[in-house]
Amino acid sequence: MTYIPNIRPMDIEKKSFEIITEELEKRGKQLEPGTEMIVKRCIHTSADFDYADNLYFSKGAVNRALSAIREGASIVTDTEMAKAGISRRTLAGFGGKVYCFMSDPEVARKAKEEGVTRAIISMRKASALPGKLIFAIGNAPTALLELTDLYRAGKIRPELIIGVPVGFVNVVQSKEALQASGADCIIARGRKGGSNIAACICNALLYMADSTRGAGHSSQPSMNR
Amino acid sequence: MTYIPNIRPMDIEKKSFEIITEELEKRGKQLEPGTEMIVKRCIHTSADFDYADNLYFSKGAVNRALSAIREGASIVTDTEMAKAGISRRTLAGFGGKVYCFMSDPEVARKAKEEGVTRAIISMRKASALPGKLIFAIGNAPTALLELTDLYRAGKIRPELIIGVPVGFVNVVQSKEALQASGADCIIARGRKGGSNIAACICNALLYMADSTRGAGHSSQPSMNR
Repeated sequence: MTYIPNIRPMDIEKKSFEIITEELEKRGKQLEPGTEMIVKRCIHTSADFDYADNLYFSKGAVNRALSAIREGASIVTDTEMAKAGISRRTLAGFGGKVYCFMSDPEVARKAKEEGVTRAIISMRKASALPGKLIFAIGNAPTALLELTDLYRAGKIRPELIIGVPVGFVNVVQSKEALQASGADCIIARGRKGGSNIAACICNALLYMADSTRGAGHSSQPSMNR
Repeated sequence: MTYIPNIRPMDIEKKSFEIITEELEKRGKQLEPGTEMIVKRCIHTSADFDYADNLYFSKGAVNRALSAIREGASIVTDTEMAKAGISRRTLAGFGGKVYCFMSDPEVARKAKEEGVTRAIISMRKASALPGKLIFAIGNAPTALLELTDLYRAGKIRPELIIGVPVGFVNVVQSKEALQASGADCIIARGRKGGSNIAACICNALLYMADSTRGAGHSSQPSMNR
């Protein structure tokens, strides 16, 4: 219940990360080296310490993603909401863009024609994009299942798949299928996740990739709050 | 761990709400009549059953908000992400719009000039909008504190303030100040909330206001998932 009158917005985030770090220590929680900033940012975005336990990182996934971002990788999301939450300015600084095809009328038409979800058609469309790609899935288990199928069939080789759809039906299974596929991935195991978590993992990676922020500085200073 | 192969997307949401209802019953959780669809949608959007306990509704808030929506009220958010998540089509059907002034260059300039957050200047700007207004705050405690000050000073009389900023510094206090002010409000007490929860409460109200959906139908059928 920390209350600090007249705190500068850029200091709110710093203080928040200090509180999160202290609480993780109190809980005796050891985070995997290299993943701390991602886990803490997920807790920061949700105030939910379950993310200290449920996040899974495939071996080498974070480093590969950081290299890809620095080399201009683009990010594909499955919701306009996740797209809106990703720091486009930081990504653009590296040469990348954020794509979401969910509102594309052509996608809607094809989905209806084939009797599948728009999320599936969106992923097929995105898989044809040129250059390095990171997929960030916060909503649709069908998007994640489609990406896993495309990966297994050798049709896509993304730099990273962020598999954090939220929900009660087919969600857990879509994450398990992704984990079993061998693709480089970050997953929120279980039911939890969401567009906010998908965007937040992308932003954590973007801020880590941006060495101008300085080592140990966890977060984006902003006048947002 | 419900897995249903080949389920139609519109049925995923229906099944999800059934699972949520069952789990609430198992937990012996009684929801306040008239708030069920809002609470369940927050759980649906986060897979976090804490929302069964932490949501506070001021007396009559839901009915006043539903009337306001039907009369063309607009919604003001404190993030582009929340704005992106709100069903603009449903709102437009009633005559309302969604506003977010956080990316407005004039807002950024004034915030810098006055040494306050962009969120504060955004709220001042929004309070001058004509017509009925609902505020949905999922990120910035300073936005919520400013709205509470404006309300106490008699300068705004919004139809509803959704106070669900998430975080560790000044967040709990901003919600307590709102609750004490007497303004019509829906609050996620404690640290939890977020842009996703702000958007989700707006959507729950929009779907409830839309009687064409039929009584008892909790959710938006969609091809999203």
